[in-house]
Amino acid sequence: MELEKITEKVIKGIFVELEASGRHVHVNKEQAQILFGHDLTPSRPLSQPGQFLAQERLTVKGPKGEFQNVAVLGPARGKAQVEISLTDGKTLGIRPPVRLSGDVKGTPGAQLIGPKGSITIEEGVIAAKRHIHMTPIDAKHFGVEDKQVIKLQTFTERPVIFEDLVVRVSPEFTTFVHLDYDEANACGFQKGDLGRILL
Amino acid sequence: MELEKITEKVIKGIFVELEASGRHVHVNKEQAQILFGHDLTPSRPLSQPGQFLAQERLTVKGPKGEFQNVAVLGPARGKAQVEISLTDGKTLGIRPPVRLSGDVKGTPGAQLIGPKGSITIEEGVIAAKRHIHMTPIDAKHFGVEDKQVIKLQTFTERPVIFEDLVVRVSPEFTTFVHLDYDEANACGFQKGDLGRILL
Repeated sequence: MELEKITEKVIKGIFVELEASGRHVHVNKEQAQILFGHDLTPSRPLSQPGQFLAQERLTVKGPKGEFQNVAVLGPARGKAQVEISLTDGKTLGIRPPVRLSGDVKGTPGAQLIGPKGSITIEEGVIAAKRHIHMTPIDAKHFGVEDKQVIKLQTFTERPVIFEDLVVRVSPEFTTFVHLDYDEANACGFQKGDLGRILL
Repeated sequence: MELEKITEKVIKGIFVELEASGRHVHVNKEQAQILFGHDLTPSRPLSQPGQFLAQERLTVKGPKGEFQNVAVLGPARGKAQVEISLTDGKTLGIRPPVRLSGDVKGTPGAQLIGPKGSITIEEGVIAAKRHIHMTPIDAKHFGVEDKQVIKLQTFTERPVIFEDLVVRVSPEFTTFVHLDYDEANACGFQKGDLGRILL
C-alpha cells in the first residue's frame, strides 16, 4: 500500500469529514411539475449516494424577504422541505425550528416560486439539526449507533465542540458530518476540514 | 437577603451571561464629522460601561454587496473598525479575518456611506474573535486572567462548547461573553442564555 493510502486510512480511522449544507429545497414530483414544468434534472452528485444538486433553482419567499436562486436537491421526495439557517430565517421573517430532515410536522411554511409556477407549502421550513451520516462499518468502528447523540470536536479555524449531534447510520450513506452555514461559519469551516467524535 | 437575590448570586457564581453582537461599525471623530456632520449621539447604553449604540447609522459596502442601516457604536475610537460575521462577509464580498477588536493590521477595507458623506477605509474589517469581558473580581472568582484562552459551554437550544475563547479583564468591563451572530445562531442563543467556563 502506498504511503498516501495508508495515511488516508489512518486519518479516516480517527477523524470524520465535515460538510456544510447551504440553504436548499426538496420538492415532490407534482411540485416539480408545477414549479419547473418537468422532473428535477441532476446537475452534480452530492456526497450522499444517489442525492444530487438539481439544475433547477427557485425563489423561497417569507413574510419579510426572499432568497432567489436557491438550490434544489434531488431526487424528488414525498414532501417539500426547505432547509435554511437561523440567519436566513431572519431575512425571510420565518423562525425555523431546529429539526432532523423529514421531521416537519407543525413547522412554518413558505412560498416557493419557480420559472413555471409557484406553490405555498403550509409546513416544511426547518433549520437542519446537526447530524452525521455514517456507514454501518464506520459506525461500528467509532462505536456509535443510529440515533445516538454524540459530541464532535472540529479541527477548524475557530474550533468548537458541537454537542447534541445526532448519528444516522445506513448502508445508503457515506460518512460525513452535516452542519448548516451558521455552524460552519461559527467554527470557521473550510472544505476538507475534519472533526473527531467524542462519546 | 431575599431568595431572588440569593439565587442570582449563586447563578452568577457558576455561570456567565452570553451576548450576541450584530454587525456594527466604530469610527473616529473626524470620520463621524464626514459621515454624519457631527459627533456620535448616544441612543442607548450597551452592556460594557460607557459604550453606546449611536443614533447614527450607515451603509457598509463591499465589492459584492452592501448592508444599509448598520449600527454605529460609540464613543468614537482612534481608528475605524467594521465587525461583521463570516456570513455577512459573503454578502459583501469580503472575507474578514477572525481578530480581537483593535487588531486590524492588514485586514480588508470597505466603503462607509453616511447621510453626509462617505469614506473608504483601507483596513479594519474583522470578524470578532469570541471573547469574554470580565471584571477583575469575576476573573479571580473563576480563576482566569487577562488574555487566557478558555473553553465555554453554552446552555442554549443547540448546545456547543466554544474552544479558543479569549478572556479580557478590566475594571472598566462588565462580565459578558461576546459571540457574533454566526456563533449565536449556531448555538441557538436567545437573550439571557448562560454559559459555563471550562478550564
